[in-house]
Amino acid sequence: MAKDKKMVQAITSMDEDFAQWYTDVVLKAGLTDYTSVKGCMVIKPAGYAIWENIQRELDRRFKETGVENVYMPMFIPESLLEKEKDHVEGFAPEVAWVTHGGLEPLQERMCVRPTSETLFCDFYANEIQSYRDLPKVYNQWCSVVRWEKTTRPFLRSREFLWQEGHTAHATAEEAEARTEQMLHVYADFVEEVLAIPVVRGRKTDKEKFAGAEATYTIEALMHDGKALQSGTSHNFGDGFARAFGIQYTDKENKLQYVHQTSWGMTTRMIGAIIMVHGDDNGLVLPPRIAPTQIMIVPIRQQEETVANKVEEIRARLAKKFSVKADFSDKSPGWKFSEQEMRGIPTRIEIGPKDIEANQCVVVRRDNGEKVTVSLDEIEEKMTEILDTMQKDMFERAKKHRDAHVYDAKDYDEFKRIMNEKSGFVRAMWCGDEACENQIKEDTGATSRCMPFEQEELTDTCVCCGKKAKKLVYWGRAY
Amino acid sequence: MAKDKKMVQAITSMDEDFAQWYTDVVLKAGLTDYTSVKGCMVIKPAGYAIWENIQRELDRRFKETGVENVYMPMFIPESLLEKEKDHVEGFAPEVAWVTHGGLEPLQERMCVRPTSETLFCDFYANEIQSYRDLPKVYNQWCSVVRWEKTTRPFLRSREFLWQEGHTAHATAEEAEARTEQMLHVYADFVEEVLAIPVVRGRKTDKEKFAGAEATYTIEALMHDGKALQSGTSHNFGDGFARAFGIQYTDKENKLQYVHQTSWGMTTRMIGAIIMVHGDDNGLVLPPRIAPTQIMIVPIRQQEETVANKVEEIRARLAKKFSVKADFSDKSPGWKFSEQEMRGIPTRIEIGPKDIEANQCVVVRRDNGEKVTVSLDEIEEKMTEILDTMQKDMFERAKKHRDAHVYDAKDYDEFKRIMNEKSGFVRAMWCGDEACENQIKEDTGATSRCMPFEQEELTDTCVCCGKKAKKLVYWGRAY
Repeated sequence: MAKDKKMVQAITSMDEDFAQWYTDVVLKAGLTDYTSVKGCMVIKPAGYAIWENIQRELDRRFKETGVENVYMPMFIPESLLEKEKDHVEGFAPEVAWVTHGGLEPLQERMCVRPTSETLFCDFYANEIQSYRDLPKVYNQWCSVVRWEKTTRPFLRSREFLWQEGHTAHATAEEAEARTEQMLHVYADFVEEVLAIPVVRGRKTDKEKFAGAEATYTIEALMHDGKALQSGTSHNFGDGFARAFGIQYTDKENKLQYVHQTSWGMTTRMIGAIIMVHGDDNGLVLPPRIAPTQIMIVPIRQQEETVANKVEEIRARLAKKFSVKADFSDKSPGWKFSEQEMRGIPTRIEIGPKDIEANQCVVVRRDNGEKVTVSLDEIEEKMTEILDTMQKDMFERAKKHRDAHVYDAKDYDEFKRIMNEKSGFVRAMWCGDEACENQIKEDTGATSRCMPFEQEELTDTCVCCGKKAKKLVYWGRAY
Repeated sequence: MAKDKKMVQAITSMDEDFAQWYTDVVLKAGLTDYTSVKGCMVIKPAGYAIWENIQRELDRRFKETGVENVYMPMFIPESLLEKEKDHVEGFAPEVAWVTHGGLEPLQERMCVRPTSETLFCDFYANEIQSYRDLPKVYNQWCSVVRWEKTTRPFLRSREFLWQEGHTAHATAEEAEARTEQMLHVYADFVEEVLAIPVVRGRKTDKEKFAGAEATYTIEALMHDGKALQSGTSHNFGDGFARAFGIQYTDKENKLQYVHQTSWGMTTRMIGAIIMVHGDDNGLVLPPRIAPTQIMIVPIRQQEETVANKVEEIRARLAKKFSVKADFSDKSPGWKFSEQEMRGIPTRIEIGPKDIEANQCVVVRRDNGEKVTVSLDEIEEKMTEILDTMQKDMFERAKKHRDAHVYDAKDYDEFKRIMNEKSGFVRAMWCGDEACENQIKEDTGATSRCMPFEQEELTDTCVCCGKKAKKLVYWGRAY
């Protein structure tokens, strides 16, 4: 059994090499694999099932706020991409270009969508005529392509899956309210379901989305102290509407420009789950997002009473949980290690002695806690254990995050923290992009966000010493 | 009210111009719209919600048979596409080519997937080592691109949405069984949920998929008598496995090639729903696939008792059905026409007099049948009405289909039927591709399938008079 365990494990430890540990988990937990298509990944069943759960839960939350799903073409003609100046500058250098259709060269080349603002705008320009046509609160689930030089599974790949919401509103106020509303939908989902605490805030102008007036973001801290931008929501004002001529007739019969937003969340969140909750035994999935919540491992499965009892328990639990029983011809120890590597939240061990005593052993994946549970109350106990585990995982991640948030009152302190520790540094900022550039050059940190909950740590900018305008979370980021 | 109705309707009648009627329904029911991207469509909320229901129901049926979902890259390097000779010949002329990534030309151009056999094979070649790794029963939901010259919403567009299943098996028998199993999953889904009767059969070699040993198909008949291929399932034997080197070690430790299948269904099925069930008032959706099953239209909605009662009924029905109440500021007549155009299966009319009598009027979209229903038993009655409507729609479509199936015993009869009528012609065939070509040239008909249920109408080929081998369904197709 010890030998088995060793064979399955064989992953680099987090402390030794975090990047290698991440890659090991992704591959050994069967989430993705490399392909012959450079920079693109295969998402395997164990990984895709997590994405399906993310989709189901987010989609439900979207629809509760009135979102409707649509599908736009995957191609953007070059002339369409170029209509909004900031936007094209932001994306043109990193798109894939289609130049031939069938055997013929195209009259106008098209890119594969890196994001679909331009397509939605082109559509809305025809679709929206009157105030009666507003608001439009549309979303699509699709893949997008950005021609990255260096790639990592889930975190940065040339193609990734996401949803992108695109809305149009009659007033600036309504657009702003929707932008913030969707950020909170993301934040609540990530905290409640993925058990990852986030900082909610606004991006600086330097870091905002190409073409946006304001970008809001949720920022999470990974186990290695690096930040991960986890979801963004953009308010475009009427900038795109002016570029694309999206106008409506208001109740007084006057022509007005619409106000727009967009917001997206991607498969990158699977990377966040790995890097926040994983450990040296592999993946650890929060119960609320786990495709399989319980793995039953029979001990002496060749004995008929064991096989029958395990199947009975599985069937009972299946009414309430996502549960599997592992009857493969591997040893129990091997199965334990596999269940651990794959991050299945709980394991139930049942053998002849347990059956005699009308009980089983339940092991939590996150902290290894073992409890003996009477088979009569297995449903209630599993609910309790999974609920507690979900809460504990959030609290543990929050404690880790909070322990890696540092306040810097002057630039020496800032540089020292960035040099010696890893995590978020909170420091005041004057609002000047030059200071952001200086800080990045000196420390590698970027401004992650100006949190909604502002404080005044000092009254001067941590970098230049001029009057401070905003509290900013800084950090090195994925 | 009459005037309102006229304004909403304004679609071409089916008999006058079926193609124009189809386009009118697609646009007026709000299913799709044109875009600036030539040959590609926007799928609008009313259309996409149908696709979401198709996805949910098919995905559930797939998973019951052990299918797992994955995601492969959208790009195929040219060298990978070229690995299987028949396959590349079938697809290379109609793919979109990506030649530049960012600002640089690619070293090797890549096509946007027209289908993903080559990607799955490339993946399986690494993934499959031992008989323990088999079977692989994977599926993906995605969009694919085929550079069509002429396009029509849902039926033929340069990009469309679909699912593609790709499986690998230890034996030829298992692959054949899976190929047929999935065809029956499609057929049952289309008949039970979309209320469209299909003929199940096998494609001739001329019509089979590029690279397949055998292609099975379900063929449906549209209202205009043209056939629509509605779902296909392919058995590749070990052809792709040999081209890509996909081998496993069997229990005797010998190297064996895997046997593979693939199977797909597309957004084209939304076109089938329109063309089988639609009428001159617009779309008619079978209750089991309709995103909204019941539309409640209040009469005198400004009266508080009406508004309250309608909301009460809506809330009661929402526990069991997908239901909406239309409180917009349009007239009831306008709302009736909109509900009809959008194909919502049933309408409930409630006004002050109805409320006094504790009743409402329920109108079926498919046959206009009106019944008065007591509000006390509205849930039971709606279940009954929607179930009956689902059955009636299938029976009606089947009756229409059966009335348009003709037997031809000789070539003159064949040509006369194809000339004077529209529908399926059943006729015997010698197995020679030359006869298929001749028939197509003379009549425009192609072989749709060799049905599983074979009969011997005559003992000679309808075209050349040589010995007949198979009964074939022939027809003009979309």
